[in-house]
Amino acid sequence: MFKKILIANRGEIALRVIRTCKEMGIKTVAVYSTADAESLHVRFADEAVCIGPAPSNLSYLKISNIIAAAEITNADAIHPGYGFLSENAKFSKICAEHDIKFIGASPDMIDKMGDKATAKATMRAAGVPCVPGSEGILESYEDAEKIADEIGYPVMMKATAGGGGKGMRAIWKKEDLRKAWDSARQEAAAAFGNDGMYMEKLIEEPRHIEIQIVGDSSGKACHLSERDCSVQRRHQKLTEETPSPFMTDKLRKQMGDAAVKAAEFIKYEGAGTVEFLVDKHRNFYFMEMNTRIQVEHPITEQVIDYDLIREQILVAAGIPISGKNYFPQLHSIECRINAEDPYRDFRPSPGKITNLHAPGGHGVRIDTHVYSGYVIPPNYDSMIAKLITTAQTREEAINKMKRALDEFVIEGIKTTIPFHRQLMDEPDYVSGNYTTKFMETFKMKPVEEQ
Amino acid sequence: MFKKILIANRGEIALRVIRTCKEMGIKTVAVYSTADAESLHVRFADEAVCIGPAPSNLSYLKISNIIAAAEITNADAIHPGYGFLSENAKFSKICAEHDIKFIGASPDMIDKMGDKATAKATMRAAGVPCVPGSEGILESYEDAEKIADEIGYPVMMKATAGGGGKGMRAIWKKEDLRKAWDSARQEAAAAFGNDGMYMEKLIEEPRHIEIQIVGDSSGKACHLSERDCSVQRRHQKLTEETPSPFMTDKLRKQMGDAAVKAAEFIKYEGAGTVEFLVDKHRNFYFMEMNTRIQVEHPITEQVIDYDLIREQILVAAGIPISGKNYFPQLHSIECRINAEDPYRDFRPSPGKITNLHAPGGHGVRIDTHVYSGYVIPPNYDSMIAKLITTAQTREEAINKMKRALDEFVIEGIKTTIPFHRQLMDEPDYVSGNYTTKFMETFKMKPVEEQ
Repeated sequence: MFKKILIANRGEIALRVIRTCKEMGIKTVAVYSTADAESLHVRFADEAVCIGPAPSNLSYLKISNIIAAAEITNADAIHPGYGFLSENAKFSKICAEHDIKFIGASPDMIDKMGDKATAKATMRAAGVPCVPGSEGILESYEDAEKIADEIGYPVMMKATAGGGGKGMRAIWKKEDLRKAWDSARQEAAAAFGNDGMYMEKLIEEPRHIEIQIVGDSSGKACHLSERDCSVQRRHQKLTEETPSPFMTDKLRKQMGDAAVKAAEFIKYEGAGTVEFLVDKHRNFYFMEMNTRIQVEHPITEQVIDYDLIREQILVAAGIPISGKNYFPQLHSIECRINAEDPYRDFRPSPGKITNLHAPGGHGVRIDTHVYSGYVIPPNYDSMIAKLITTAQTREEAINKMKRALDEFVIEGIKTTIPFHRQLMDEPDYVSGNYTTKFMETFKMKPVEEQ
Repeated sequence: MFKKILIANRGEIALRVIRTCKEMGIKTVAVYSTADAESLHVRFADEAVCIGPAPSNLSYLKISNIIAAAEITNADAIHPGYGFLSENAKFSKICAEHDIKFIGASPDMIDKMGDKATAKATMRAAGVPCVPGSEGILESYEDAEKIADEIGYPVMMKATAGGGGKGMRAIWKKEDLRKAWDSARQEAAAAFGNDGMYMEKLIEEPRHIEIQIVGDSSGKACHLSERDCSVQRRHQKLTEETPSPFMTDKLRKQMGDAAVKAAEFIKYEGAGTVEFLVDKHRNFYFMEMNTRIQVEHPITEQVIDYDLIREQILVAAGIPISGKNYFPQLHSIECRINAEDPYRDFRPSPGKITNLHAPGGHGVRIDTHVYSGYVIPPNYDSMIAKLITTAQTREEAINKMKRALDEFVIEGIKTTIPFHRQLMDEPDYVSGNYTTKFMETFKMKPVEEQ
């Protein structure tokens, strides 16, 4: 087993890793930027090394400084957390070259899953369903018509140079294809100087449902069921839950089997997540694979009583997994508490926390690196805490989340606590009837109406 | 279901009950003494009524004030928590007379289990093993000899007027009985002016292991397995765990069956605890029954994912229990964090908490009514928080407790955090080899050696 692990990250995930290391009797090294000197991850590690100033490219992304910190502290492994260097093939490679175990995916694996086209091709080869569509750019209108007939309506036509919805059209029936083709190409040409188009099946009422997997060095993998992360704002997840209210036993088995097949096909080692889009007919399509721990991992831990960071460390140390799939026995919800003002379009709100009181009691878990008196630096992601509730049913977990949010006191800055509190009363959330489009129509109620 | 519950208690247990009520959609009324105006149980309740000054007999024990508070707030039930009026038959009766549901035992049940002699006689009639001994005072030396022969050596002879170990003798073999008889009677006569003696079997290496039970109005009961509360100081529990490291599947079944038999024999309604002494041969003997929720109930909740306060409320509302026995799937430990100085014979240390930071993360639960800036009044029990860790194994739960204790910051007062931290490293605790005598020999290590 490792003797000392350096955590190449900051904030709550650095603290999360340190906690498990302590419980396993492994020494820890924190690294920190000058902006993070007062963070709890620095205080609770056995050693801490300052690796540079606040901009991430000068500290948390600066490979040479991190490797130097590992060498001077004699760390034999590095846990990268999420974000920063966690899916950086070069970093994984350099760790290996310095004889430091990277607790994450191999450089090859990161490359393979990091490029979306390669990842999709690999998954197709593994027999995992991907969103059907054109292989690359449509050659002609006839080509578009042929592919649309093959994959079935509705379809999405997208500008290959596109962005911001420009040159993008949803087409629900064949009669509308010609008009869409012409107008989308014109729009794309005008916007990007490039009228190249590709086509994908339109996913109706899409849900973002992901499967947690763990694989070991023998090539064996298992899944730990799903997380529903459909509540997103501009592709940022806001709250997650497991089980998904949309899930059926049959679909869980299908998606779980597909994720395990994918992991075993690529001989995936470590903890990873296979993200799928699920349409309203419960067809599921591979979206991408994350070769690292995810922000939302605690809800999985809560429902299966399993420490995923511990599992990452064990697998990295060469210890085989049990190979058993895990199914949720409880219901768990995570709310990401961000230093943002939900009444002002989620504008960041860094600054000093003048008072903090965290909720507690049965079924409440909090992961945070902040405390009363802590100054949130403006340099990083705005997430300051994860509040997780767990209960026997979804309804109880929601009710528990409401009372925990009501108890949570964070003063001095604005947070997303009021947003989550309203979300927990929103009929479409409460009924479980939400898709990735949910936040497009969600509006905060004015303070006086609450 | 109840519309509004008044909680006739203070501190963490009042907050504990409020939390579950909120989660169930039941309104709450806190009552408080003038010394408790700033406690969280007051802040988090829907309504709060001051019921008098700090001395408990003028507030938390003053039945008329509590009933008046329930009547003016229109509460339809009262939860008494533990301590105070929770096992007061008169209070239970007066609640009933005022048409307020007492969420606890009936007056009859409290009377029956509150008197130790009656409780033991009832348990014997139910076929539950009790510590064998003389029925009342020994009539003569010959009587003592006869009973000792019947119950078998070793035996304890105790002065009926006794206390503080005076007039008490452990007798390991028949040859020593005469001498013990003479000297104990002389000592008792001198100390108490009463040389009456009774005899009980001596319990070797006793452990305090209790079984949580729940019964409903149909007379059906189930058990939720055991808690080991052997780590005690002057009969005050300090830390508890489940499962007991001393437990076997066979013993759990025997003790669980006995506790269910006891509960069903008396048609027990609600949550209760049957406390046993277990000797080194794994013989178990009924000690007493607590007809209320206990301080240590969270560890049971943690290992079976079951909210006991919710269950109390459901049963009080007439909803039948499942009747299924529950067995621990995990390991959970509770440390009672008291405002006491473990370096000075656990002397109380009330006062202002100038800084508080609670640990968090996977498998950590905290139940507390205090916060940064809170002033602990000197009037009440010194327990200010319960720290509970839960993991797949006992070793992991201990390691988690160590790291959680290391993270726990409470400044401005002395607490028992350093005691628990040392306990978690104590070889006899770590091996699970401890009895109710454990604290008699435990010594705090000086600060500099830690």
